[in-house]
Amino acid sequence: MKIVFFIFDGLTALDAVGPYEVLSRMPGAEVRFAGVTAGTIVTGDQKLRLATDVAIADVPSCDLLVVPGGFGTRALERNQQVLDWVRAIDKTTSITASVCTGSFVLAAAGLLEGRRATSHWAMRSRLADYGAIPVGERVVRDGKYATAAGVSAGIDFGLELVLELCGKDIAAGIQLGIEYDPAPPLDAGHPDRAPAPVRDALLARLLARDKAAREAHE
Amino acid sequence: MKIVFFIFDGLTALDAVGPYEVLSRMPGAEVRFAGVTAGTIVTGDQKLRLATDVAIADVPSCDLLVVPGGFGTRALERNQQVLDWVRAIDKTTSITASVCTGSFVLAAAGLLEGRRATSHWAMRSRLADYGAIPVGERVVRDGKYATAAGVSAGIDFGLELVLELCGKDIAAGIQLGIEYDPAPPLDAGHPDRAPAPVRDALLARLLARDKAAREAHE
Repeated sequence: MKIVFFIFDGLTALDAVGPYEVLSRMPGAEVRFAGVTAGTIVTGDQKLRLATDVAIADVPSCDLLVVPGGFGTRALERNQQVLDWVRAIDKTTSITASVCTGSFVLAAAGLLEGRRATSHWAMRSRLADYGAIPVGERVVRDGKYATAAGVSAGIDFGLELVLELCGKDIAAGIQLGIEYDPAPPLDAGHPDRAPAPVRDALLARLLARDKAAREAHE
Repeated sequence: MKIVFFIFDGLTALDAVGPYEVLSRMPGAEVRFAGVTAGTIVTGDQKLRLATDVAIADVPSCDLLVVPGGFGTRALERNQQVLDWVRAIDKTTSITASVCTGSFVLAAAGLLEGRRATSHWAMRSRLADYGAIPVGERVVRDGKYATAAGVSAGIDFGLELVLELCGKDIAAGIQLGIEYDPAPPLDAGHPDRAPAPVRDALLARLLARDKAAREAHE
């Protein structure tokens, strides 16, 4: 199975690395990291840099495309080279997927029109601007399109996909291999269960950053 | 807070990227990715390459050191340059930490003697060879030493540390920011709860790979 992660300046590294650690362990998985150019990419969060293996122009097809999120997606929503490539490679995939705000890249390419889809909880509603139907679930599947919620949801997305494609034993083995037996010290990972002042302050900060990132590319 | 992730050939990317996405969001966090040389690093799992910011020789001190795991740690257990650096920088830290088999690097440097520590469930018992006390918990703290279990446990480690250092509101905000509300489709992430044949087959495979990796560096 040929799996392509599209990586770009301003991605959130965990959006890609979570599902990568799961999906790359599938029997027969061949993973590539494709970027606009083959070179080193700076993420938007802090200082972590991921290197691309190959330029998107040299990747005409794959079985599974995964587009991670990050504030860098706002530029991609208006990047015709990237959107053209996403539309073209999507014609070759069995599954086209996103994590977090990666769904906005799929949406801007016109792939989610009329489809149920998700994104980071703070950003999700804007998917409707592209004709998608925002859904507040951790992983949403509509036809061949799979969209995961924010950042860490990519791990659960990966495991669900392995379960679907390879069955329970392989999925259990991969989950045990990465010892994914989560035990966060707080129950604050969902907007309905985080303290309301914390949630409201974070939402305001994220929306301001989202607005600034979008205005920078208008 | 100066945070240094030591990255190396053969690391498991999620061991580093999980806690990175948490810790880098702490107010005042300054994150660096240090390697033996300042260059591009190939991970051991598949094809993902992470780039180092700086060479370890140029990083004499930090507040928090995080050593991720991966099969590449077996070479590090015998790499005197790396072990000397780990010992030296440890003298400057408030917290010295590891994820997964990163604890073997701390142990080989002599830092865990007589201390409670953990690692990936399949490898943990070998910590006793270095005089550490293997403990089957997701995150183990002994004095200033924090060791996390396999791969994905680094996310929980990161959140526990933020809770300790910055309090509940900051920790909750970061958890909500990365939408860490885990929902794996199976309950198979702990060796006691994975199907026994899956666990036993994985254990045999991991121990064989561990043995081969160690013999390659004898």
